[in-house]
Amino acid sequence: MDNKHLKELLEQVKSGRIDTDAALHQLKKLPYENLGYARIDHHRCMRNGVPEVIYCEGKTIPQIQGIVEKLSQYNENILATRANPDVYAGIQDVIPDCVYHEMARIVVVKPRSVNQVGNLAVVCAGTSDMPVGEEAAITAEVLGNNVNRIYDVGVAGLHRLLGVCDDLFKAHVAIVIAGMEGALASVVGGLVSCPVIGVPTSVGYGASFGGIAALLSMLNSCASGVSVVNIDNGFGAGFQASLINKAIAKNEDD
Amino acid sequence: MDNKHLKELLEQVKSGRIDTDAALHQLKKLPYENLGYARIDHHRCMRNGVPEVIYCEGKTIPQIQGIVEKLSQYNENILATRANPDVYAGIQDVIPDCVYHEMARIVVVKPRSVNQVGNLAVVCAGTSDMPVGEEAAITAEVLGNNVNRIYDVGVAGLHRLLGVCDDLFKAHVAIVIAGMEGALASVVGGLVSCPVIGVPTSVGYGASFGGIAALLSMLNSCASGVSVVNIDNGFGAGFQASLINKAIAKNEDD
Amino acid sequence: MDNKHLKELLEQVKSGRIDTDAALHQLKKLPYENLGYARIDHHRCMRNGVPEVIYCEGKTIPQIQGIVEKLSQYNENILATRANPDVYAGIQDVIPDCVYHEMARIVVVKPRSVNQVGNLAVVCAGTSDMPVGEEAAITAEVLGNNVNRIYDVGVAGLHRLLGVCDDLFKAHVAIVIAGMEGALASVVGGLVSCPVIGVPTSVGYGASFGGIAALLSMLNSCASGVSVVNIDNGFGAGFQASLINKAIAKNEDD
Amino acid sequence: MDNKHLKELLEQVKSGRIDTDAALHQLKKLPYENLGYARIDHHRCMRNGVPEVIYCEGKTIPQIQGIVEKLSQYNENILATRANPDVYAGIQDVIPDCVYHEMARIVVVKPRSVNQVGNLAVVCAGTSDMPVGEEAAITAEVLGNNVNRIYDVGVAGLHRLLGVCDDLFKAHVAIVIAGMEGALASVVGGLVSCPVIGVPTSVGYGASFGGIAALLSMLNSCASGVSVVNIDNGFGAGFQASLINKAIAKNEDD
Amino acid sequence: MDNKHLKELLEQVKSGRIDTDAALHQLKKLPYENLGYARIDHHRCMRNGVPEVIYCEGKTIPQIQGIVEKLSQYNENILATRANPDVYAGIQDVIPDCVYHEMARIVVVKPRSVNQVGNLAVVCAGTSDMPVGEEAAITAEVLGNNVNRIYDVGVAGLHRLLGVCDDLFKAHVAIVIAGMEGALASVVGGLVSCPVIGVPTSVGYGASFGGIAALLSMLNSCASGVSVVNIDNGFGAGFQASLINKAIAKNEDD
Amino acid sequence: MDNKHLKELLEQVKSGRIDTDAALHQLKKLPYENLGYARIDHHRCMRNGVPEVIYCEGKTIPQIQGIVEKLSQYNENILATRANPDVYAGIQDVIPDCVYHEMARIVVVKPRSVNQVGNLAVVCAGTSDMPVGEEAAITAEVLGNNVNRIYDVGVAGLHRLLGVCDDLFKAHVAIVIAGMEGALASVVGGLVSCPVIGVPTSVGYGASFGGIAALLSMLNSCASGVSVVNIDNGFGAGFQASLINKAIAKNEDD
Amino acid sequence: MDNKHLKELLEQVKSGRIDTDAALHQLKKLPYENLGYARIDHHRCMRNGVPEVIYCEGKTIPQIQGIVEKLSQYNENILATRANPDVYAGIQDVIPDCVYHEMARIVVVKPRSVNQVGNLAVVCAGTSDMPVGEEAAITAEVLGNNVNRIYDVGVAGLHRLLGVCDDLFKAHVAIVIAGMEGALASVVGGLVSCPVIGVPTSVGYGASFGGIAALLSMLNSCASGVSVVNIDNGFGAGFQASLINKAIAKNEDD
Amino acid sequence: MDNKHLKELLEQVKSGRIDTDAALHQLKKLPYENLGYARIDHHRCMRNGVPEVIYCEGKTIPQIQGIVEKLSQYNENILATRANPDVYAGIQDVIPDCVYHEMARIVVVKPRSVNQVGNLAVVCAGTSDMPVGEEAAITAEVLGNNVNRIYDVGVAGLHRLLGVCDDLFKAHVAIVIAGMEGALASVVGGLVSCPVIGVPTSVGYGASFGGIAALLSMLNSCASGVSVVNIDNGFGAGFQASLINKAIAKNEDD
Repeated sequence: MDNKHLKELLEQVKSGRIDTDAALHQLKKLPYENLGYARIDHHRCMRNGVPEVIYCEGKTIPQIQGIVEKLSQYNENILATRANPDVYAGIQDVIPDCVYHEMARIVVVKPRSVNQVGNLAVVCAGTSDMPVGEEAAITAEVLGNNVNRIYDVGVAGLHRLLGVCDDLFKAHVAIVIAGMEGALASVVGGLVSCPVIGVPTSVGYGASFGGIAALLSMLNSCASGVSVVNIDNGFGAGFQASLINKAIAKNEDD
Repeated sequence: MDNKHLKELLEQVKSGRIDTDAALHQLKKLPYENLGYARIDHHRCMRNGVPEVIYCEGKTIPQIQGIVEKLSQYNENILATRANPDVYAGIQDVIPDCVYHEMARIVVVKPRSVNQVGNLAVVCAGTSDMPVGEEAAITAEVLGNNVNRIYDVGVAGLHRLLGVCDDLFKAHVAIVIAGMEGALASVVGGLVSCPVIGVPTSVGYGASFGGIAALLSMLNSCASGVSVVNIDNGFGAGFQASLINKAIAKNEDD
Repeated sequence: MDNKHLKELLEQVKSGRIDTDAALHQLKKLPYENLGYARIDHHRCMRNGVPEVIYCEGKTIPQIQGIVEKLSQYNENILATRANPDVYAGIQDVIPDCVYHEMARIVVVKPRSVNQVGNLAVVCAGTSDMPVGEEAAITAEVLGNNVNRIYDVGVAGLHRLLGVCDDLFKAHVAIVIAGMEGALASVVGGLVSCPVIGVPTSVGYGASFGGIAALLSMLNSCASGVSVVNIDNGFGAGFQASLINKAIAKNEDD
Repeated sequence: MDNKHLKELLEQVKSGRIDTDAALHQLKKLPYENLGYARIDHHRCMRNGVPEVIYCEGKTIPQIQGIVEKLSQYNENILATRANPDVYAGIQDVIPDCVYHEMARIVVVKPRSVNQVGNLAVVCAGTSDMPVGEEAAITAEVLGNNVNRIYDVGVAGLHRLLGVCDDLFKAHVAIVIAGMEGALASVVGGLVSCPVIGVPTSVGYGASFGGIAALLSMLNSCASGVSVVNIDNGFGAGFQASLINKAIAKNEDD
Repeated sequence: MDNKHLKELLEQVKSGRIDTDAALHQLKKLPYENLGYARIDHHRCMRNGVPEVIYCEGKTIPQIQGIVEKLSQYNENILATRANPDVYAGIQDVIPDCVYHEMARIVVVKPRSVNQVGNLAVVCAGTSDMPVGEEAAITAEVLGNNVNRIYDVGVAGLHRLLGVCDDLFKAHVAIVIAGMEGALASVVGGLVSCPVIGVPTSVGYGASFGGIAALLSMLNSCASGVSVVNIDNGFGAGFQASLINKAIAKNEDD
Repeated sequence: MDNKHLKELLEQVKSGRIDTDAALHQLKKLPYENLGYARIDHHRCMRNGVPEVIYCEGKTIPQIQGIVEKLSQYNENILATRANPDVYAGIQDVIPDCVYHEMARIVVVKPRSVNQVGNLAVVCAGTSDMPVGEEAAITAEVLGNNVNRIYDVGVAGLHRLLGVCDDLFKAHVAIVIAGMEGALASVVGGLVSCPVIGVPTSVGYGASFGGIAALLSMLNSCASGVSVVNIDNGFGAGFQASLINKAIAKNEDD
Repeated sequence: MDNKHLKELLEQVKSGRIDTDAALHQLKKLPYENLGYARIDHHRCMRNGVPEVIYCEGKTIPQIQGIVEKLSQYNENILATRANPDVYAGIQDVIPDCVYHEMARIVVVKPRSVNQVGNLAVVCAGTSDMPVGEEAAITAEVLGNNVNRIYDVGVAGLHRLLGVCDDLFKAHVAIVIAGMEGALASVVGGLVSCPVIGVPTSVGYGASFGGIAALLSMLNSCASGVSVVNIDNGFGAGFQASLINKAIAKNEDD
Repeated sequence: MDNKHLKELLEQVKSGRIDTDAALHQLKKLPYENLGYARIDHHRCMRNGVPEVIYCEGKTIPQIQGIVEKLSQYNENILATRANPDVYAGIQDVIPDCVYHEMARIVVVKPRSVNQVGNLAVVCAGTSDMPVGEEAAITAEVLGNNVNRIYDVGVAGLHRLLGVCDDLFKAHVAIVIAGMEGALASVVGGLVSCPVIGVPTSVGYGASFGGIAALLSMLNSCASGVSVVNIDNGFGAGFQASLINKAIAKNEDD
């Protein structure tokens, strides 16, 4: 059962044409492959709309290679996140059809162009936050979103932020990425009327405590409409923002 | 300038009929009233679509009364959150046209029925999490969302959760509320394909550290698509979920 | 040796007319009175320009009374901070010539009008931060500063802050008081060119952790020129701001 | 006094054939050898049923060699945990009769086959948790348990876990190993009726805080029947699970 | 389907007479009752061998009453933990057939004598730890275990502990309860050869941080064979110890 | 066996006249009384030179009464610490021969005058630290030490400290008690040549975190010769200082 | 618009010759250059009196080079902080006119001599705190302040501090830098009558927790007049102290 | 003024033959040498009985060399702690008359034999704690104490500790060094009647949090008579223990 069939089934569930029980029954039939060290989940697509993403940290290169090989039999645009250059080389050895986004530390295996919809803003406070910003942006682009990168607009120079207000007002959803005191999430949250996903980063030193300061700051945002993901979790923000942006955009196109 | 006019102006900005600078110029003309202890923001509507919400903790009853009186001159369905019975009595004294949701600790001043759209699920792990669940649910209902309450489906009895899967699959957005270890956010996040907003609660004791355990758990969710708000912040989750659900639903209706 | 003489001696030291050793010798002669539970420091004036301040928390009312009685023999405008109504009543019993600032929780014993110089801004993010704001403002006023109170200008409604920019630009020093995520300190720090003293407050709940979120946020401010005092320490901010404002103002008047 | 004699004595104590005082008296006679840097405990067997385990971190290789040499005079199947390849090489130099489990970081000195009884499940949430899983599994196997490895069944793909329910239901005791939010312990705890030992791992980043998130999550498990060991402590879990599984299995065989 | 039938079905699953799928099918048929605020789980017995336990903190008395009424239709020996005297009174109003263990803060609804098997030791370091000890002991007794209470044997007076060694050596499983530095868990863990479940308590002050010191101490026990539950979680320790003790004892009796 | 005999035996051990084994044998014969909730240790005297001290927090008044009654059969000058007025009344009911030190929260049961030797300084930074200071001072006095109280000499007024240097230089051991930033321990530690025992107190607010700031400060003292006890642990400091002071003084008298 | 023109405009605003709105209008016209990864802020001078400072950590060398090149077109005395030797080499490649202060880790690009005014003391507790001290001192010197370095005067040897009192008394503002317990800030704060800016450093080990001990100590200073910046933030302290010292000195010169 | 003269003066102060003021006057005359980066304190001997100790971490080798050269002009047995082999080499280059204790990381410059008095026990829980143990032991030996090393007697094998009780009972003061859960301090504290100084070590992993677990454990010791120094601070413990042991021993010899 390839990607298309899974999507069809998913659509049937969403539209109510088949009931969930029947669909679950079909899903149970789908084999997941047990490699011993990993159970490849070929029908994750059905459940949340994207193929399994490979989080590379803590996995050996042979393990990653094994997972990539299996996934690439049925899927395209497979994301391998937190991938350093050695991981990239290892993936290339088994699937040469792949591309490496170095700053984002993401390998896209079997990259294919996708239709990009809506308007998803990725806003970074400082230049040092860009790796996390790129992780979010690449993730969102591969998942099919129009991404608008707005970088280096931290609150210490408020006029820089005010200068991009028009861009912010157009977004369906905004990812706001900041280290140090993470104040940008609150300020953007007070300006826009779309949902804001804050990503605290580990940029900073001393009492930033590896991102805790920014995390707490964002969790306590006095602006309504802000939620938060883990420190440096650009992928997670990109993924959730994609769910939101695409749901809004899809209906827009109708 | 009343609520309607603000909305009109907002629409013009969104549609591009007037540019942002022109709109900002108009906005600057709008007086906000300085009561000394508070600056009443009469055009917040324009910025994020809802009147100012009064967070009651830390404010004296006379301060709350003053703010309510001013806001109620131009607005309806004003939310006063974290309101204990004394606050409710104080508000009633100045604006009798109000209703108190005791479990949610919310007073709605000048409550008016609103059109409720879409499908916003509020999921609670345990009975003790219900006050936070109700804060989210009432907030979302007042802001114009169809809310589906799904309570007491914690992971210790997985079949209870599996029994409500059909409800979960229908949601545009799901708020997942849990104390103790907060595992429900990950499990729901792994099941659904809509965005999940986790709300850790302070339910628990000992090493729950007033909600830190659940907060960290949700921030580290292995399921993609989960973001998090502050501990016990039912209002914040309800507010952001409303932004998402209404944006999706509005387009659906077109 | 009364207040005036101490100041004279201090001036001599500063101007170099007598050397430090000689001055220290004179100082050693000054008795401090040992009440057993407290050593009354009659020449603190000489060292930092103000009479001893009584921090009331953790002291019994008889202890406070004893200290006030001794201090008031030689001093005026004595500050008793963190004073609840019982403490006020206790002080009144022994020195009726006193005034109570309830919101600031400060008793001023033997209040006398002082010349108020310069421009010291006290900026509060929210209404709930006002008790800390008043502690700073009253402290600064009693110590001889012109104080400009700017309240309820939190970053969630940025136009409120922009509306008071002119006031901010005039300040010699600004105290910025905020709870929750404390972002106001960074935003103000990025706007003004005077020193900013941040005071995190314990306003908030959940992951604000009694002010830790705001404290960390302010310590990690991306805006240069911001330093921080303890959570809820309005007195400390008012005291240091007074040192700065008066040093600048004094020379201005020359 | 070799291993066998110790076991005999131990059995006499357990069966009540000799009283504890008498046994303790015999034990006191047993020399432990003081190497200066370590006191080799030759009768630990008597007290908890296994020879002393060497925790290698923080010990120099000569110290480890000295301890291994002494222990191997009287014991077999000696475990050296947290052993890196250099430690392995060092042990091989003095006792060539040893085997290295690389992923588990365990050296077994004088490995001998043992009867493996009962049913001890080792469950891992993700591939990255496998090193801890193997530490637990190898420990349990060397101590004489049937081990059933169930890997990569994290809660983000619940059907993978449901697919192994039959295996879980057969276990006498289950070790559940998970990083990030550690939710697997609660979910397994809610499914099975045997004791569950949770092992939080340091897998994750940001707010996982080196395993704190998973640790707190497991300590606050809403499922009854879950206890927890230190972060990454596969050995400790394997050891305790072995005590439980063997006690149950032994009686089963009677 | 009453308690007996559930047990029968459970036995069939364990013995393999019916397969899990068939059993799950039957279980799904079992109604759980949705009271709105709680979903009563009538077949929890099947899953982990005991009726649902009511954790009373955070629940209103009417909620507790509703749950107790439903549960008591099909079950006996229902445990309501963390029950203060008001809760007890509330339960008595609806089910007079109940008993209150005040120190343990447990109400047993419809108490019935059960066969008590095996040997489960509950060891407390100090008198102040007794409430937690009693919570564990009462839980274990109601669940059908022989409990041996060994109180006030903290390590500061080692001879007291040595004086009860014989009792400790007889236990199938030992619960060790200690506040302050929690050292007793390690010392007992080093003496016995059965599994030890540590319960840190919040007894102490200052740097005990509400039980964190004891919790960390027990998690880092240098003695193998020790696992830990949440601070003050006597119930959880009693529950898991019961699973272990009964599994061992059951086979012993064969 | 009364107090005197225990001391004799202890002396014999110290002098080597009887060996430890023989002494331990005699000790084992000594009954400790098991009250169920407490094991009264009648030969603690032998081990550390003072009768058992009753830490009252967390104990019920009947438990305290029971322990006091048993201890007072064989001992005098029994310390009951952390005793509030209710505890005092409860003790008085069973043993009227007792005295209450209210600020120190200590009841001395069967108070008898003891020879007070040596020179033990108790130094407090501020008036608010006095309750902890008194707990240390009363403890030390009852245990037989000359105590020199030096209060309110915090570092903010350094000349007050310098004024008492002569007193400090005479001490055999100094207890330094301070809250807030706890700097006094370092400053005294840099001045004197005797051992300094630091006691951080919970005096302060905000980022003092209940004494953590002072605790960390003292643990990191740049002055050599400083060790630290738990926050607010006046008793512990008094006890250890007594061991040191009396050991030095005893030899002095020879 | 070069540096001089910006200053002129700034002066006009300060003197009130043009109003703020007019000035802001002019400022908005000023282009900031968007390099994609950074928005170069050419009119920061206007806002806070110094050109943008480059915080090098987390930026790639090409990014730093790009920023330096742009900034150096319009500015002199550009500070690049947290610059390691590689960064210095990278900057030299594009702008050879630069100097490296190795201990301070600061590169000054296009260094020009400036008029140094006032009296700014930089006080270090220990030799190991010097890198932070130099960061503060170099920053302040480049910004135009007379800096008086007073190093290695920690409180463990109080006479060393007392020996430099005369220097301290002359300062307009004092930066106090200390690791370990950070007591020096309180002691200096108690001695002087000028504002004190504390800089906790990460010097220490164990319970210094990377500077937390010193940070908390300084935040809780019992001496009034002390505020604090982030751990190791020599730059921030130098920057704020410069604002204070220059404001005082400027008026002095009038 | 050399070492001997300082000691003489010190003795005069102690004996009261000259008063403190006179002595201080003499001391003030003593130059300390300001090297710019360090102020060499030649009369520290007088104040606390030993020459300045050089804490090497964070100092450059040239700085250490400069300090050593100056100190060695007037002193012998100079301790350089936390010295790695490079530091040792650097010291050797300027003062070849030195010895390196590698495990203790201590260089003794101009080592001279000293009279060693009293009985100071250094007790280590595990082999991995030995570096800290040696730091304490070497420090104490150089300062003139008889040191009894008792290593690898952790509580997991209680009989090892009981086997060395005789040694423990003879000590004037005991240093107890332990990582992981640090229980040894409490157990030793309960056995002996001399003061115990606990040294938590960073030995451990996971929830030992770099020694926090052991630190908290020791601070909360249920045994009276235990105080604590910083994590891994063998030097500090050795120094304070030396003060205690020598004060007791000196009088013993009289």
